[in-house]
Amino acid sequence: MSERPLPLDGLLVLDLGQIYQGPYATFLMAQAGANVIKVETKKADPLRRRELVGDGPSLPFALLNSNKRGVTLNLKSERGRELLIAMAKRADVLVENFAPGVLDRLGVGAAVLRTANPRLIYASGTGYGLSGPDRDRLAMDPTVQAAAGVMSITGLADGPPLRSGPAIGDFLGGVHLYGAVVSALYQRERTGQGAVVEVAMQEALYPTLASDLGLFHRAGHQEPRRGNRHGGLAPYNVYPAKTGHVALLCITEQQWQGLMSAMDRPDLAEDPRLATNLERAEHVDLVDEIVEAWARSLDRDEVVRRAQRHGVPSAPVRDLAEVMSDPHMHERGMLQRKRHRDLGEVVLMSSPLRFHGAERRELVEHPRIGEHNREVYGSWLGLDDDEIAELERNGVI
Amino acid sequence: MSERPLPLDGLLVLDLGQIYQGPYATFLMAQAGANVIKVETKKADPLRRRELVGDGPSLPFALLNSNKRGVTLNLKSERGRELLIAMAKRADVLVENFAPGVLDRLGVGAAVLRTANPRLIYASGTGYGLSGPDRDRLAMDPTVQAAAGVMSITGLADGPPLRSGPAIGDFLGGVHLYGAVVSALYQRERTGQGAVVEVAMQEALYPTLASDLGLFHRAGHQEPRRGNRHGGLAPYNVYPAKTGHVALLCITEQQWQGLMSAMDRPDLAEDPRLATNLERAEHVDLVDEIVEAWARSLDRDEVVRRAQRHGVPSAPVRDLAEVMSDPHMHERGMLQRKRHRDLGEVVLMSSPLRFHGAERRELVEHPRIGEHNREVYGSWLGLDDDEIAELERNGVI
Repeated sequence: MSERPLPLDGLLVLDLGQIYQGPYATFLMAQAGANVIKVETKKADPLRRRELVGDGPSLPFALLNSNKRGVTLNLKSERGRELLIAMAKRADVLVENFAPGVLDRLGVGAAVLRTANPRLIYASGTGYGLSGPDRDRLAMDPTVQAAAGVMSITGLADGPPLRSGPAIGDFLGGVHLYGAVVSALYQRERTGQGAVVEVAMQEALYPTLASDLGLFHRAGHQEPRRGNRHGGLAPYNVYPAKTGHVALLCITEQQWQGLMSAMDRPDLAEDPRLATNLERAEHVDLVDEIVEAWARSLDRDEVVRRAQRHGVPSAPVRDLAEVMSDPHMHERGMLQRKRHRDLGEVVLMSSPLRFHGAERRELVEHPRIGEHNREVYGSWLGLDDDEIAELERNGVI
Repeated sequence: MSERPLPLDGLLVLDLGQIYQGPYATFLMAQAGANVIKVETKKADPLRRRELVGDGPSLPFALLNSNKRGVTLNLKSERGRELLIAMAKRADVLVENFAPGVLDRLGVGAAVLRTANPRLIYASGTGYGLSGPDRDRLAMDPTVQAAAGVMSITGLADGPPLRSGPAIGDFLGGVHLYGAVVSALYQRERTGQGAVVEVAMQEALYPTLASDLGLFHRAGHQEPRRGNRHGGLAPYNVYPAKTGHVALLCITEQQWQGLMSAMDRPDLAEDPRLATNLERAEHVDLVDEIVEAWARSLDRDEVVRRAQRHGVPSAPVRDLAEVMSDPHMHERGMLQRKRHRDLGEVVLMSSPLRFHGAERRELVEHPRIGEHNREVYGSWLGLDDDEIAELERNGVI
């Protein structure tokens, strides 16, 4: 296929996002070719703030804000709000994940901005949504994980409910918001009209519960947390090896037979107690004991090698150092080693969205606070140097 | 705003997806207005198979396949492949999440289908992607969670690495695939050309590690798993209450002061050991002890009520029964109680993507296997009754 531009090439996005949900949506837009302007107060995105208070530069901020330009803007000033409206008139998309109603109360909510520019896509990411009785609940990733049921199914049967380590509420929220925005952009091509779209983190988490909702439906109640086990399959667990751990599971009978070959246990392949999934699930402790004894006799990667060779789904439980330096993701361009002006040698990420025939954007390090004020307010909005100097003096930018 | 159609209204999607990743992408498309045809072998999507082997209908299958029509198709027959190509000629999007290369080997891969229809968006969801050294590793949600580093940061310091309970690899993969498809549709409006897009589950998980990658970067190594705690904030945990558990955290000093008011502990609000986040993080055991003692004296919902009243982010750790019947998500239309022809009374889900001014699709229960063969192959593709009967006789459909 011949070279083509990235799909969002030529679009202008105003990113009023903070921390993860909004900024991840606009990160995906930037990597899909859009021109993203990150709009921060001088106090800055809380994720950057650590850096400003001398706590050292923040890798998470760097990860999420590559290829964005940055401006400062004080929305509590009349002139600041005028500037936001002026920018919204020239923009295609505005993304924000403030608490519901924050921009409305400042006088620059969706209704005002969409009146100024009917082609604008206004996108709101929140914890619980812009309507409904729980709308105003304070939402952070772990509290939404709690409210959404995620914690009730994570952890061991005899332990406390646990958070999923990754910030899945924030990121599922962010990528759904990307999907909503691009859907509205697609529609705008046909109708000429912008839209208001929204995503609630709580709702973005619900579909991920599918397996456990199914087990609930079947049993009529919620079973205790299962750790790494499955409700109806065995083996399906994380096994300690001589070094490290291995995730391994069998779904089909063929995979079970493959595992018995990998373990060189023809005797067990014919054991009637273990003949079907149903029976193995009934003897799950026995199954786990057998697999664990084998796994413990070998190094982690050797267990995986032998299992894979016999068609058994398995993988090493890798730590962050291994993941960051994963040759596979580096070869695919998802991860890239960069010399970063503030952070030194780091691994930055590209986008999980891959468009064949279009080149990935070269990763450009995140903007410093207000770095592109002159470029954006000057060259783009057309203010002259005196006006910009005055905005700075008056604390508008 | 006046009523408008859903954004993907009028699009036709062929869903060759299985289990979660592909079917979730097409579920989002269906709920965004697209006409989705689920194409299964007679053996069926593995998620439905339980139902066909008499193991009872599957709620996860029902959740993910609302508002799709269903046909059967045998791609191992010449005539079956011809029918797929005939459908692809009339379709806008084809989604599949087979192992890499499966459709190529059958002779109906992206190159063939895109030659037949240059406007087609061909979307592939895999565990590790269509290129790179790990391309052919067998991938299931837990093994990808292991390989992606998720398990290494989930669990307690003294316990094993744990799976995130929800199938986050599958669903993050699915929603990213939705985003990639709609981006390509947007581009097609401008260029007239289709595209090949892909998403790897492993890559879709990487961004969610941001906080832990940041802590790693700062410390120079990976700290032990933190359970429900944060690396640099306290309180930030899940606390047992008199009944149930509560997730609660303070990010700002104002929130800490709010919590001390909620607890009626002005003495602690002025305790110099707990004056800042930095100091509280240093005395994290003390902080957790204080908050836990308070939480244990009250019912779960009372802890949350008091915390929220004083501006402290918190939420009950809710179980699946509570989540399924959540009045908030029902009021917002995300969850809907339905009388299902096969499953009886169930709660089905709509889409986390919300388009203001457009009505949600009325949820229609998932198709039975091959239910729409006549409608799709007859009315849409134009085969007559005799031809359809012959296809059935020959095991093509």
